Amino acid sequence: MNDGEFVKEIAAKDEAFSQWYIDVVKKADLADYTMVKGCMVIKPYGYALWENMQQCLDQKIKATGHKNAYFPLFIPESLLKKEAEHVEGFAPEVAWVTHGGDQKLEERLAVRPTSEAIIGSLYSKWVHSWRDLPILINQWANIVRWEKVTRPFLRTTEFLWQEGHTAHKNQEEAEEETLKILAVYKEYIERDLAIPVLAGKKSSNEKFAGAMHTYTLEALMGDGKILQAGTSHNLGQNFAKAFDIRFLDENQEEQYAWTTSWGTSTRLVGGIIMVHGDERGLKLPPKVAPVQVVIVPILFDKTKQEVLKKAQELKTRLSEKFRVELDDRDAYTPGWKFNEWEMKGVPIRLEIGPRDLAQQQVVAVRRDKGNKITVMENELISTVEKWMGDIQNNLYMQARTRLEENIRFADHYEQFKEIIEEKRGFVKAYWCGCEECENQIKKETKATIRCLAMENNKEKGKCIYCGKESMSPVYFGRAY
Amino acid sequence: MNDGEFVKEIAAKDEAFSQWYIDVVKKADLADYTMVKGCMVIKPYGYALWENMQQCLDQKIKATGHKNAYFPLFIPESLLKKEAEHVEGFAPEVAWVTHGGDQKLEERLAVRPTSEAIIGSLYSKWVHSWRDLPILINQWANIVRWEKVTRPFLRTTEFLWQEGHTAHKNQEEAEEETLKILAVYKEYIERDLAIPVLAGKKSSNEKFAGAMHTYTLEALMGDGKILQAGTSHNLGQNFAKAFDIRFLDENQEEQYAWTTSWGTSTRLVGGIIMVHGDERGLKLPPKVAPVQVVIVPILFDKTKQEVLKKAQELKTRLSEKFRVELDDRDAYTPGWKFNEWEMKGVPIRLEIGPRDLAQQQVVAVRRDKGNKITVMENELISTVEKWMGDIQNNLYMQARTRLEENIRFADHYEQFKEIIEEKRGFVKAYWCGCEECENQIKKETKATIRCLAMENNKEKGKCIYCGKESMSPVYFGRAY
Repeated sequence: MNDGEFVKEIAAKDEAFSQWYIDVVKKADLADYTMVKGCMVIKPYGYALWENMQQCLDQKIKATGHKNAYFPLFIPESLLKKEAEHVEGFAPEVAWVTHGGDQKLEERLAVRPTSEAIIGSLYSKWVHSWRDLPILINQWANIVRWEKVTRPFLRTTEFLWQEGHTAHKNQEEAEEETLKILAVYKEYIERDLAIPVLAGKKSSNEKFAGAMHTYTLEALMGDGKILQAGTSHNLGQNFAKAFDIRFLDENQEEQYAWTTSWGTSTRLVGGIIMVHGDERGLKLPPKVAPVQVVIVPILFDKTKQEVLKKAQELKTRLSEKFRVELDDRDAYTPGWKFNEWEMKGVPIRLEIGPRDLAQQQVVAVRRDKGNKITVMENELISTVEKWMGDIQNNLYMQARTRLEENIRFADHYEQFKEIIEEKRGFVKAYWCGCEECENQIKKETKATIRCLAMENNKEKGKCIYCGKESMSPVYFGRAY
Repeated sequence: MNDGEFVKEIAAKDEAFSQWYIDVVKKADLADYTMVKGCMVIKPYGYALWENMQQCLDQKIKATGHKNAYFPLFIPESLLKKEAEHVEGFAPEVAWVTHGGDQKLEERLAVRPTSEAIIGSLYSKWVHSWRDLPILINQWANIVRWEKVTRPFLRTTEFLWQEGHTAHKNQEEAEEETLKILAVYKEYIERDLAIPVLAGKKSSNEKFAGAMHTYTLEALMGDGKILQAGTSHNLGQNFAKAFDIRFLDENQEEQYAWTTSWGTSTRLVGGIIMVHGDERGLKLPPKVAPVQVVIVPILFDKTKQEVLKKAQELKTRLSEKFRVELDDRDAYTPGWKFNEWEMKGVPIRLEIGPRDLAQQQVVAVRRDKGNKITVMENELISTVEKWMGDIQNNLYMQARTRLEENIRFADHYEQFKEIIEEKRGFVKAYWCGCEECENQIKKETKATIRCLAMENNKEKGKCIYCGKESMSPVYFGRAY
């Protein structure tokens, strides 16, 4: 196989986006299929990316006063059934444990599809007085939902996530928490993952099963479809009533607590691939890239030792500030290595050969630009440092521009359908608020309400479907 | 309740060790029971301890060239059955998923009791040539084993652990890996957790189901019983043959790979409690303590603001180097707080009141010593820094001395039984190597072979049970 074929093995992004996605997941060595239906293995490169993502978000979650804990994987069936809407939403997706060893269990156990029920049962035990509130807990955990159609990272039977669960003494605090977390998520997704998002409330149809209301962040993918990137739910008193979370308030009166929950998952790895990737593979934001700088030495027999020595020296120096890999494999040509590291989305590649050595320079290539630039050795660290910021910013700005170009307003249904079919992206349109219109639009166009517009809008409009007067513009799109 | 009662609520360590253990787990707020049989919730303070432990070990695992990945939670029954000894060992403890939503599954899925089977099936896919070896992967995951008798951290139906799984091209490399990891574990457990261990091979009876042989680290607990602290298994070619992990070697000949696996878990939290704890509660090694320094201001109405301001200032300064908590709660007396933070095992407590403020000093108390020492403010950071090392070392040395005092040699069975019954700890004795003696000893004394002695021993002895000649001294003990 010659050097170029490494890249040719992936499908063309513009022509076959879904296949391109799968190809990149495999070729960049992020994940693999397993013999367990719908379950993937996250391979070391993909997991290192996830670990960096976790670290970015975990810091933000802790900085806002939340603490991590760990709750059981299993939820007894009777407990899951306590909140009616909740069980209705999740029951079809639950994996059930029925036997422990040879013994049939007295009660089936759900493998957690989300943890409101089990956590609610414990908060009920822990909360007695207003002094016990708020409870601000997050958990990193695996989740199982029996999915019919799966795709690596985007929808898998088992996935990894974090789920926050908080309890408060009144409605205002719960709402404040729900919005605070939405802001934390927005900062994480936009600044660390370089993915711009639209923020807004979900329609009742699309909200979390059992929630009072749900806020969401919605991101535009490379094929014009929309990915739900994170959600934050104000659960009102629904779960407190179902799971009996009561406390004595300052006036010694008994109250039900107000709870929230919120989550983001490994599906955001899919988001990173689909927002930033190109025809040569992954393109990773520096903040979360497992390898930020790769050094590829250009080796000839005569000068091999000196060049390797210098490459090693550069690696040591750069490693003080960055995540660096030296690719000194003998079995591959430099060209092959260039392709492979581009496929893996490494932000900066440094090449060093005998001529560079002589002139105390290296050749540097940014993954987001592609052109070769000569950098003097004594300016290398400051250049790499500057580029880290530039690349992070550039990836975000490119995606931001694409997002803005792909929000289109429609004021009649034919136009709406045409945009959804031909251009995709977000369609902003008025909606009367009734579920029937929402369902009909979904049936006819596969577009769903991704979120209600958050910005103040004093102009009235007409529902894109039924024509009734409306104060509520919303964003539609075809979702993952 | 007065200040002292906080501590009185826990059982006396010397009289009722098991109850003392449970009391400390609850009072120090490490974990709580749940309505799911045998499953606990790890509360924020316990989870912060676990996160610090993870970080210590994860660094060491990565520094030795291993990478993290994530494999599926579920293992199809047919796959688990491929290694006969393995399934025999684990089948009685497996939780089985039989339904996804309303649908009965075609094949039952085991919730992983350990991951050799699922990982083996993937290594079979990934390994083709000797160039693909070694594979050095670790995973942090939850594990489920259907246990009849459970105790928080020590034995729970679900627990958290890391499990390493490696594949090598020959026996020597696999054995080298097995021992390398044993050394990594020993360093982690002794240096970070301050728990001294005995290292050695397991007898066939006690080895991992399906392994060629198992190395183990065994630690003495406060009640004289022994805790298995970590194990490293050389799996030989057993699993490679069962899961078909084959490769072409340098001579183009097909070979089965040689694999290893190794693990440590949240049970080590139990080890920390039982090795270091005392009648006042937990005593945490500084390296893993969630809070290394707690500041308790002594507040009087007149001087409250100044003292709080100084306490906050100290917190800010100390936080640059240490994990610090300022306990400025109004509802509790200083005495109550002292007891609570002692219960939680915080290594250093600082007290600051108006007199200290005037004299630019603080009162400092080491959890491992208890006496009050006055420290000048300008020497505070250097004192705390020095104490961190001293406390870590002191906890280790105290445990080391206790371990050494509790290894006793027995050369006849009556003496052996007396030691096991009255003094517990480790009993070093000769053993002929036959399973029958091992089983009889276990039946009659509840003592098992914790490990074979690793040190060279050229003196012969006689089997403590049957009297046959033996070259193999071993360590017996009653285990958790």
